Amino acid sequence: MIEPFSTIDLISTKRDFGELSKVEIDWIIDAYVRGVVADEQMSAMAMAILLNGMSMREIVDWTQAMINSGERLDFSSLSPATVDKHSTGGVGDMITLPLAPLVASFGAAVPQLSGRGLGHTGGTLDKLEAIPGWQANLTNEQMLNQLHQVGAVICAAGAGLAPADKKLYALRDVTGTVPAIPLIASSIMSKKIAEGTSALVLDVKVGSGAFMKTIEQARTLAKTMVEIGNAAGVKTKALLTNMEQPLGKAAGNALEVRQAIEVLNGAGPQDVIDLTVELATQMLALVGITGIDVKENLENGKALAKWQQLISAQNGDLSKPLPAAKFTHEIYAADSGTIAKFDALSVGIAAWRLGAGRSRKEDSVQAAAGVTWTIELGQKITKGEPILTLHTDEESRFDSAIAALESSVVISQGESVAKPNLILDRIGE
Amino acid sequence: MIEPFSTIDLISTKRDFGELSKVEIDWIIDAYVRGVVADEQMSAMAMAILLNGMSMREIVDWTQAMINSGERLDFSSLSPATVDKHSTGGVGDMITLPLAPLVASFGAAVPQLSGRGLGHTGGTLDKLEAIPGWQANLTNEQMLNQLHQVGAVICAAGAGLAPADKKLYALRDVTGTVPAIPLIASSIMSKKIAEGTSALVLDVKVGSGAFMKTIEQARTLAKTMVEIGNAAGVKTKALLTNMEQPLGKAAGNALEVRQAIEVLNGAGPQDVIDLTVELATQMLALVGITGIDVKENLENGKALAKWQQLISAQNGDLSKPLPAAKFTHEIYAADSGTIAKFDALSVGIAAWRLGAGRSRKEDSVQAAAGVTWTIELGQKITKGEPILTLHTDEESRFDSAIAALESSVVISQGESVAKPNLILDRIGE
Repeated sequence: MIEPFSTIDLISTKRDFGELSKVEIDWIIDAYVRGVVADEQMSAMAMAILLNGMSMREIVDWTQAMINSGERLDFSSLSPATVDKHSTGGVGDMITLPLAPLVASFGAAVPQLSGRGLGHTGGTLDKLEAIPGWQANLTNEQMLNQLHQVGAVICAAGAGLAPADKKLYALRDVTGTVPAIPLIASSIMSKKIAEGTSALVLDVKVGSGAFMKTIEQARTLAKTMVEIGNAAGVKTKALLTNMEQPLGKAAGNALEVRQAIEVLNGAGPQDVIDLTVELATQMLALVGITGIDVKENLENGKALAKWQQLISAQNGDLSKPLPAAKFTHEIYAADSGTIAKFDALSVGIAAWRLGAGRSRKEDSVQAAAGVTWTIELGQKITKGEPILTLHTDEESRFDSAIAALESSVVISQGESVAKPNLILDRIGE
Repeated sequence: MIEPFSTIDLISTKRDFGELSKVEIDWIIDAYVRGVVADEQMSAMAMAILLNGMSMREIVDWTQAMINSGERLDFSSLSPATVDKHSTGGVGDMITLPLAPLVASFGAAVPQLSGRGLGHTGGTLDKLEAIPGWQANLTNEQMLNQLHQVGAVICAAGAGLAPADKKLYALRDVTGTVPAIPLIASSIMSKKIAEGTSALVLDVKVGSGAFMKTIEQARTLAKTMVEIGNAAGVKTKALLTNMEQPLGKAAGNALEVRQAIEVLNGAGPQDVIDLTVELATQMLALVGITGIDVKENLENGKALAKWQQLISAQNGDLSKPLPAAKFTHEIYAADSGTIAKFDALSVGIAAWRLGAGRSRKEDSVQAAAGVTWTIELGQKITKGEPILTLHTDEESRFDSAIAALESSVVISQGESVAKPNLILDRIGE
């Protein structure tokens, strides 16, 4: 096969602040999957993209080329319409668990292809695997059947979706080229578009526990993803939400499932309820379901019933107890005052060190490990009150987790502390 | 072995406009040679260096780390002192051939480790191999002996000098990361410093036929190399010289050797004589030989005698005829007027296509192929005069060479054309 382009020429174009054409982008992605473009060439290209940027047209074409590298699911035969959510990842972010059944309980279909955790952020599949018997891997046919019968499915993305993204992400991970907004946006969106959803709400996290540390970065990423989605015919909106402090009251697999069940029973932490309702309202609006009281189905048991169907359909046994950690350790308030800082990243790292997360893709996780807490920003606290509980099956893990939490909580005696906004911005309204 | 640094952290430092410490640079070069830093990581690092730059201290440390990756020759036992020249490469640049014997004829020792041509630029070793029997490869001992006995040696650099540079250059060549001034400067200087010369004059070419297209780029490269050399204890100066039009009157291996012999006989093109004398004067001054008439030894046969010793010592037989091409083709002036443009790059590409150059390192070259010419910028010409002659052993190569020369010569009827300066600047005075 005679190749129509020279890899070095295309790298040089991005290096010299030029723009790649659609045919050039189609070729480089395809040639990378075929092994004609070598890893050391693609990593130089990725660094040039990271430092010099890409035009919106290039990002849309790059995403499309990654989608074209694999299969594309088709749910157009489904009635009702499909709608999905994607979160860029944070600490204690188990919103998918109550959200998918809540949205399905109003008649929309939710095809939620999810991932596993890496580092300090958790993954939806790891959380659900804390439920005895629950299966993450479904065939495309099983997925479609479940969407027909239950209206929601949460499962692992098959290897057939956007294989170019899989190869490129593994390369970026070892070459310092992860934090490139064009590459982050096209990576997320290629999988979501290939998955075949008709509408998508993005939850872009901002702050200490998120990949995007500033609102400007998060807004750029959100706008980029919304444009990619709409250009590909997927109705897409985004929320920017706060991840300075962790979400809810738990970080850890079984601990977050337990919290999700509380929310589906009409209880649970207020911020989790608020974000679940907000995201569900946006998702339902995108598929034309409006004028309803979304929160009602969390309180009247309809979302809970849908959750039970969803978990049972994938062999999860909710009658069995969730795993509990062998060891716990309490941390107490060192002072009286107001919580002025509660750092999401520190909590995420502590949960990871306790066994809830993994350092490498091939590591396994502890279902019961993690951190629970009673506090939130702006809350009054009395010296000696328990504020954090550490959970693990291996007692030797406590020391490093406690070290991670050392300066995670600041208690202020002086000025009052305003409760921060959970929803920071909406993109694509 | 536990590695003291994370490759991703060091890439991220350069990516985020930070500075690498000396120990970090020492480690990454050593770890790259050991294979601990992978090619795809080093190419991302090279692109970050290309786009974000390096401080002078980082460049000096990077060069030193590449020198430390291999052996370092030591000529300090030699009296007289050693002095070398390096050219960044151009079209018709055979100055090393008359220069090394000229400098040696005044009693300085010239250890000239040279390379081969790639693309449109020629290589000194390819040129000398046009002489029947001449040997490019010497052991370190042979080299030292020849320096003692003849006072000059022109040979291939051994694989033991700066092996990190060899590995890194091959990587940069396929990843679009060649044109990074910190990496070009450290690549050249690591080999020259490891070679053990006590003084060095750099000839940095500027213009169409050179790698540096603008005087600003060339000046930055020259200043960087002069600083590296002086920091390493090698007395270093640089000239910036014109490569808008080709040097001399020939481009091609045997064709350039023939021209060198003319110059060593007191004849030859004026620009070649001028540049040879200028570089020799600078080199001799760096080792304390001043107050002499450098040009005299080109005219009195002393440089020629040294040339004959130099070539004979490496088995070259100057009594045998140089190879001549089987086919020639003349190009004639299309108009009468003044030569307003004579493009070096076009001539270099034509010589390459005629067989004088190579596209890949493993290709062989034709000794007799190339281009000769009668013209220079500012010269008056009459329509129908022969201006260029093409030489090759394969007649089928003429068409593509003629195509390369299509717009290489512009003859102006109107305004007068000033003869350009050959020496554009001096760095390190």
